[in-house]
Amino acid sequence: MSEVQEQVQGAGAGAGGGKPTTRDALIEAAFQLFLERGFEQTTIDDITGLAGVGRRSFFRYFPSKEDVVFPDHEGALTEMTAFLDDCGDGGDPVVQVCDAARLVLRMYAANPTFSVERYLLTRKVPNLRIHELSVVWRYERTLAAHLRARYSARSDGALRADVVAAAVVAAHNHALRTWLRSGGAGDVREAVDLALDFVVGTWSEQPRPDGGDGPEPAEDVVVLVARRGTPMWRVVQGIESALDG
Amino acid sequence: MSEVQEQVQGAGAGAGGGKPTTRDALIEAAFQLFLERGFEQTTIDDITGLAGVGRRSFFRYFPSKEDVVFPDHEGALTEMTAFLDDCGDGGDPVVQVCDAARLVLRMYAANPTFSVERYLLTRKVPNLRIHELSVVWRYERTLAAHLRARYSARSDGALRADVVAAAVVAAHNHALRTWLRSGGAGDVREAVDLALDFVVGTWSEQPRPDGGDGPEPAEDVVVLVARRGTPMWRVVQGIESALDG
Repeated sequence: MSEVQEQVQGAGAGAGGGKPTTRDALIEAAFQLFLERGFEQTTIDDITGLAGVGRRSFFRYFPSKEDVVFPDHEGALTEMTAFLDDCGDGGDPVVQVCDAARLVLRMYAANPTFSVERYLLTRKVPNLRIHELSVVWRYERTLAAHLRARYSARSDGALRADVVAAAVVAAHNHALRTWLRSGGAGDVREAVDLALDFVVGTWSEQPRPDGGDGPEPAEDVVVLVARRGTPMWRVVQGIESALDG
Repeated sequence: MSEVQEQVQGAGAGAGGGKPTTRDALIEAAFQLFLERGFEQTTIDDITGLAGVGRRSFFRYFPSKEDVVFPDHEGALTEMTAFLDDCGDGGDPVVQVCDAARLVLRMYAANPTFSVERYLLTRKVPNLRIHELSVVWRYERTLAAHLRARYSARSDGALRADVVAAAVVAAHNHALRTWLRSGGAGDVREAVDLALDFVVGTWSEQPRPDGGDGPEPAEDVVVLVARRGTPMWRVVQGIESALDG
């Protein structure tokens, strides 16, 4: 099996370890030609010719030449939507959308060589960069829709949902692109966890500094806010009443 | 002057109240045809024919048919970059990028009818939506670059810059798109101010509840954080030392 074959088959969403499909053959042929000749210089006929299938087969799997470069995004979007639907109305919505973003990461991390090569190709071809932006936008809207539903009782719910969704996508992509630019060095999962922790720390309504999910520990924190100039007796009264509460 | 003429000339960046230019004529002809026939059904030859100029004139002003739909974004990007360069190293960087985003808003608010019609056209044409995403991405990168420079001393600087820039763009666009969907009803500036206040309130390191920019007022706020169970003498000591400071 060639290196391109291995990469493509490793990157195939849900293809498992089974026999290469027509779809796999199209992805493999496309990447081989894109890397050899360049994206713009490769026609769909070139791809189907090399894959040994008819032109109509291509369009059965991919709406455009751009889509074959991102063959697993449709699958990841479907998986993300199903995951968020399963979350229901409980739990921390910010943590949930971060976990949903990790499903996209898993796709990139499953095959570092393929992901890095695709990244380099995408940087060189303006049409692919634009196509990637539209894919990222669909992820962001999917996350925002979940948050909007969860924040529907808040007066700033829709605004908050859009801002948090954008923050999650930006944090995820910050860590992912840093890793891709490095050529796939180091543990991308750890980098993305750190980046998403930053968003959870900012937006989550259930922050738990100890990271646990059991009942709150007894040694919790009291915060007193007072204007400078408040008499000390009033400050002490405030603390006492908070500690009693 | 036709309604389309008025709208287009009102929307022209920096054209002032002067004589319509070739560029204005191209924008006017393009919008007239896009609204009459649809975007995909209009060719560049149709546009230059109606404007009474040669085909090469079109490409002198616009790299593609998509760009003529967003004629003022290049100007707004240039203005945004100049504004941020002028900010230098002082002031609150989050407030600065919010002010920079308001420069984009000003362009939309200058001509509500044109902005709403363009929005409706953009919703209908996938190529225009994708083109708009790439323009928004350039704004976001411009804001992020300013924040990265300002946050360069922080260990999480680049991540924070990317997340804040995405949050500013999301908040701005949330308010702008709500206004465009409403057909341009109400005061979009006020809606965008509210949305950006949400971001400033989250991310600014110099929050000023009074919104002023003079010296801090005397009646500022002292915050004491203590674990429940802290002895009262220790609490009082903490407050006294804060008030002395």
